[in-house]
Amino acid sequence: MRIAGQAILVASFLLYFPIAMSSSPATSTLDQLDTPCLILDETRMTRNIERLAAIMRAHGVGLRPHLKTPKSIEVAHRVMSGPRGPAAVSTLQEAEQFAAAGITDLLYAVGVTPAKLDRVLALRRAGADLTVVVDNPEAAGALARRAAQEGEAIPALIEIDCDGHRAGVQPQDTAALLEIGRILHGAGCLRGVMTHAGESYGCRSLDAIAAMAEQERRAAVDCARSLRAAGLPCPVVSVGSTPTAHFARSLEGVTEVRAGVYVFFDLVMAGLGVCGVQDIAATVLTTVIGHQREKGWILVDAGWMAMSRDRGTASQPVDQAYGLVCDIDGEVLPDLLLAETNQEQGIIRLRPGSRRALPDLPIGARLRIMPNHACATCAQHDAYEVVRAGSRAVVARWSRFRGW
Amino acid sequence: MRIAGQAILVASFLLYFPIAMSSSPATSTLDQLDTPCLILDETRMTRNIERLAAIMRAHGVGLRPHLKTPKSIEVAHRVMSGPRGPAAVSTLQEAEQFAAAGITDLLYAVGVTPAKLDRVLALRRAGADLTVVVDNPEAAGALARRAAQEGEAIPALIEIDCDGHRAGVQPQDTAALLEIGRILHGAGCLRGVMTHAGESYGCRSLDAIAAMAEQERRAAVDCARSLRAAGLPCPVVSVGSTPTAHFARSLEGVTEVRAGVYVFFDLVMAGLGVCGVQDIAATVLTTVIGHQREKGWILVDAGWMAMSRDRGTASQPVDQAYGLVCDIDGEVLPDLLLAETNQEQGIIRLRPGSRRALPDLPIGARLRIMPNHACATCAQHDAYEVVRAGSRAVVARWSRFRGW
Repeated sequence: MRIAGQAILVASFLLYFPIAMSSSPATSTLDQLDTPCLILDETRMTRNIERLAAIMRAHGVGLRPHLKTPKSIEVAHRVMSGPRGPAAVSTLQEAEQFAAAGITDLLYAVGVTPAKLDRVLALRRAGADLTVVVDNPEAAGALARRAAQEGEAIPALIEIDCDGHRAGVQPQDTAALLEIGRILHGAGCLRGVMTHAGESYGCRSLDAIAAMAEQERRAAVDCARSLRAAGLPCPVVSVGSTPTAHFARSLEGVTEVRAGVYVFFDLVMAGLGVCGVQDIAATVLTTVIGHQREKGWILVDAGWMAMSRDRGTASQPVDQAYGLVCDIDGEVLPDLLLAETNQEQGIIRLRPGSRRALPDLPIGARLRIMPNHACATCAQHDAYEVVRAGSRAVVARWSRFRGW
Repeated sequence: MRIAGQAILVASFLLYFPIAMSSSPATSTLDQLDTPCLILDETRMTRNIERLAAIMRAHGVGLRPHLKTPKSIEVAHRVMSGPRGPAAVSTLQEAEQFAAAGITDLLYAVGVTPAKLDRVLALRRAGADLTVVVDNPEAAGALARRAAQEGEAIPALIEIDCDGHRAGVQPQDTAALLEIGRILHGAGCLRGVMTHAGESYGCRSLDAIAAMAEQERRAAVDCARSLRAAGLPCPVVSVGSTPTAHFARSLEGVTEVRAGVYVFFDLVMAGLGVCGVQDIAATVLTTVIGHQREKGWILVDAGWMAMSRDRGTASQPVDQAYGLVCDIDGEVLPDLLLAETNQEQGIIRLRPGSRRALPDLPIGARLRIMPNHACATCAQHDAYEVVRAGSRAVVARWSRFRGW
């Protein structure tokens, strides 16, 4: 979808009541929904949002939530500090969808390529304050040339590789940093630096996460200092990942923190100790379709199509297979795992070594599965069926989008 | 989407020219598409379709292609033997979408539950010849009661567990088989038996696959014989998986074969020896967005959102990580793997132990990634960009659907 300026203007009139507008009346309960489907516990989500907001207030630093997890206008309005943002996105599709809904303070947090600049420019001309990311002189040069050609300064952050996880300039490579900085600044495009401690997902203690947060902060703040020392502007110093955002001891010199998956949390985050399983807000509702009683298997209609193929806890101390099984009300059934999946079928069994008895669940019984990775599981669905703590009533259906 | 009889009638008028209608004119080339996106090589797909069709002709057995892989009307019309089917589906959403397009001879090949019978009945009343599957007396009883209540015989196959892979009656458990058969027959619902040798994906040789095919055939044929010996009808004996369909030595007693992923093939099937990598018809087009040259990394804009999290080759002799890297024209670049993925970024590097040099690919260069599992990767996309051998022109865009 390519948006027009008109769309953002129209959206701007509407964004003052987004929450009231987006909730459709309750039409069903968890006992009635077609399965499998994605359930969002709004009570838990709100608690997760408030927890990180309080941490950020204590640091005195702004939050730029990453909307690649929810991909939903309704969730975006609940997680952002204002109606227009700020927020981060991982695709131009997200940027276009959110901008059309009046969410215009956006960071496209994946390295931009020349071929994507048409859509970036269209968004900016339609009124979105969209910032992009580069980490090399080639991409910076293409951006600067295009910006000069179009007479439109496209703001960009330089990505720093704070932990060897992915993309970014090495923090000690000041020559590369300054080269990119000068190219961008020459076209009026330099807005600052950003980094993401993706390796924090592999930490084994909260102390290790805190140390990783400090490493992330230092990389960004040191690079910002190098740019400024060379006479280059660096108003934005952006850091963040869900684990480091929650356990950073200092955010000195940081201007904004990004985090995404915390809005729903998941078993990977619980395995890290960043949350408890009782904080996991997104689950998949499923129905028992059969048994293989001699094997201790319960078959359900949630396969990998409903859960995703993500097995993020496989590398953690406690492997949760394809997910932790809960009753229809979201209470964990101890030792029960979604052990294996086919496309549209899942096999539930007891955790290896468990001494518990397999519960006797009849055909048609309903369960909820907590996912390894909320971003991946939610992406398998087109909508959230929204419930609140202590009730099976579906109070709203919030649509998700996808694609690039 | 719930369909009306009207929809099927209207669709029936249209289905005589589905192929001519579905191809939109070429509007772009592989050099121009937004990335990441899903590319379908129609030449390879046609070859795959013709290969299995020839094998089935030689056996004198009909094919019921499983449409859970393509989820596309246009691909369905190319893979089916007739405009109305036969075909298999894995969700009621697929059944509804295909029925609305005039594809009415359908098997819903996942165990049905009482709550799903409303949609099954609506489809049948709208004119679809939809058959369902049960593997236990509870589900059979619920089906029979509902059928009697509604005065509508809902045809059902009894699922047989030929290989311990998933659901189904144990082939030697004749008592359970006959109990289910009698319940179904009492309401006029018994149509036959079906089985799926899912364990064939774990075979280590073509001989092992042929042996698994015989095990699959025997289980279904023996159970059909037991039903008939007890005076119960069993007109349908349905077997199949992509590996066993290609290497079965005998299909005696079988009335139809099901297979799905063969239409596109993938690295798991190539690893099994069922196809070669040159047969893989579905790939993901991606763009180089950066480098970490000291590490030998090429960063691209295809992450797990574009590829899925499927790592099916991890348990095979040759692990292909997140996929095999090809040039823009689909030629494999030796030893180059999509080694790791984040949500929207992938890391390409040489296969461990490779002595080749990393190719020098500039920012903006385009590549294609062959997937581990076509069903999972295609499910991450909303459309196929269709190309033909030897050309970069996109000759059509075929949409996919999803959901339940």
